[in-house]
Amino acid sequence: MIYLDNAATTKPDAECLKRAEEYLLSKYYNPSALYAEGYNLHLELKRARNNVLSLIADEYNFSLVFTSCGTEADNQAVFCGAKRGNVVTTMGEHSAIYSAVNELKQRGIEVRFAELNGDGSVNCGSLLSLVDENTSLVSVIHVNNETGAVNDICAIAKSVKSKNGRTLFHSDGVQAFGKIAFRLSKDIDLYSVSAHKIGGIKGCGALFKRKNLAIKPFIYGGGQEQGLRSGTENVFGIKCFEFASLKKYENLGNAFKNVKRLNGTMRKRLDSGLFKILSSENSSPYILSVAATGLRGETVLHEADDSGLIIGTGSACSSNASKRYSRIILACGVEKETADGVLRISFSSENTVEEVEKAAEILNSIVKNRKQIMA
Amino acid sequence: MIYLDNAATTKPDAECLKRAEEYLLSKYYNPSALYAEGYNLHLELKRARNNVLSLIADEYNFSLVFTSCGTEADNQAVFCGAKRGNVVTTMGEHSAIYSAVNELKQRGIEVRFAELNGDGSVNCGSLLSLVDENTSLVSVIHVNNETGAVNDICAIAKSVKSKNGRTLFHSDGVQAFGKIAFRLSKDIDLYSVSAHKIGGIKGCGALFKRKNLAIKPFIYGGGQEQGLRSGTENVFGIKCFEFASLKKYENLGNAFKNVKRLNGTMRKRLDSGLFKILSSENSSPYILSVAATGLRGETVLHEADDSGLIIGTGSACSSNASKRYSRIILACGVEKETADGVLRISFSSENTVEEVEKAAEILNSIVKNRKQIMA
Repeated sequence: MIYLDNAATTKPDAECLKRAEEYLLSKYYNPSALYAEGYNLHLELKRARNNVLSLIADEYNFSLVFTSCGTEADNQAVFCGAKRGNVVTTMGEHSAIYSAVNELKQRGIEVRFAELNGDGSVNCGSLLSLVDENTSLVSVIHVNNETGAVNDICAIAKSVKSKNGRTLFHSDGVQAFGKIAFRLSKDIDLYSVSAHKIGGIKGCGALFKRKNLAIKPFIYGGGQEQGLRSGTENVFGIKCFEFASLKKYENLGNAFKNVKRLNGTMRKRLDSGLFKILSSENSSPYILSVAATGLRGETVLHEADDSGLIIGTGSACSSNASKRYSRIILACGVEKETADGVLRISFSSENTVEEVEKAAEILNSIVKNRKQIMA
Repeated sequence: MIYLDNAATTKPDAECLKRAEEYLLSKYYNPSALYAEGYNLHLELKRARNNVLSLIADEYNFSLVFTSCGTEADNQAVFCGAKRGNVVTTMGEHSAIYSAVNELKQRGIEVRFAELNGDGSVNCGSLLSLVDENTSLVSVIHVNNETGAVNDICAIAKSVKSKNGRTLFHSDGVQAFGKIAFRLSKDIDLYSVSAHKIGGIKGCGALFKRKNLAIKPFIYGGGQEQGLRSGTENVFGIKCFEFASLKKYENLGNAFKNVKRLNGTMRKRLDSGLFKILSSENSSPYILSVAATGLRGETVLHEADDSGLIIGTGSACSSNASKRYSRIILACGVEKETADGVLRISFSSENTVEEVEKAAEILNSIVKNRKQIMA
């Protein structure tokens, strides 16, 4: 199988799993325990925290809370960061933010959605016009999970802060962390990431938090994670995450170059008479959104699967919602006939040019045949 | 090392890990993905859900939400089950409930704590006297995590319901599940369990929920776990949990008998002139609370560790709070001098009589020497 749905989840890195193995059967203690074996694990988690933290942040100004996933980190940012008044976000958010802010409405908080540009990035003018003195939280996705559009969150956060300095700024960095070069600026208060999108395992994520920022805990209990996220720490998941993150950042530039080449190959090889490219050239190369106008993306996805190619349509997380059109793709201004045929092709630096060429061939042939049958 | 802190966490079951391994490097897909590989994982999770569910519940009347830990399951029960009015719980709850209900107070909900009996079980008269027409939630721990006292939650739930039929009844079953024979009765609405206490790995738990009970989601997003707990499913953790649970229940009676024997051996071998046994004979044999009156439990714990024996003092989760006396032990009416010397010895059915005999010898010798030095 050729796996090109790496934005949904990645294959865990075998080397990192191997390194973390000892935390399953040998160092299995509770990190909160008082004896040496427990305390040593506590120290190892502290090291993991600092290692992950320092990859994109200044450890004097930021701290890190390990969570059970990116969605939990997003929810913590929303529910512990939002206060009475209003919250501003975008039409291009992952459902972890979109559904959470919709719940805020039930709690008496006004939610305002900024419009998107054609490529899925946020329209900054629209966003800033929504921020006022009653805005407690602004949340803008860093890399759009459907189109790959990159929002310049440092610049956006700066503009937001100059309009209202008390507003918290959060960004969902799940599709950016470990993929694009970036560091947290002083205007960013909260930043969510996930382990399983970069070679870690499912069940682990993190929330970066500005150090002097006081937010409420999300899960209450034994006081783990600086009191902000109680529950026995997922040591194996956290160590896999640490190792995978370090590996990604060691090789960030080369991986980016490689993926850019894969993305370029796919763009070139897909038959432009059959596919419309939705992602802009400035998007993250890790995600390529294309549309087989006139067909249903889901049909193409299943046929590709039968032919040995795994790709996605929109976000994997929204398949539960069983909605026909992606709300994000529609918010980009794409018409329904095209939105219906959207496919998300997402790369890993472990993919090869040969795989991508073969994938393009499979997709061209499926859509060509389908269109011939329909003609 | 002799490991007798199994109530803090257990060593993962090697056989279960082995069986679940394929979910790391082979079946690594996103269970929400539409293609066959994703959908098959979705079906496997469904099977895991039914397998775990049917171990203690009737699957026609109960459903199960996989969570990231027991603490999260407890928090979901508290925050999604409590409504305006009051919530009734006990002085003997794990911090996952205790800290969560204290947060409820900040949200305008009155919290009432029932008193404990000397062994750590709840005083049922005290509990029932606190339940009234404004009680939205009652939460009673099933097996006390410090003393092992077993609350007859089926009988308690029945009495609570006959006093107020609209009250939700929750129980924290973390130290009961996979250890003592028990099935959820119709009066129990919510029940929390954890994987890493029974040979699964850290980072996975579950909340059993009566099927016709509508509660709000705890984490919002892609709609996983019947919409009640969004976030990409921790497939490896869930499969380890499933396998470990099945194995525990296959062998529940024999394991119980074995652990009862270990517990009895420890009670017999500990020098009664040096140790006071706090756990009653009716407690779960998996947990034995004893006190070296006049000494500090922490001191004994560290000396034992140096001698090759790992035991706990109170709950591992409360070590963060760095409080000298366990609030639960004090609530049992134990005086401070004794409470100061509390040790929690907790067994697994994999422990041997020889280990326990050796452990008793180590503990007797440490306390004897200490007392001689102090005399």
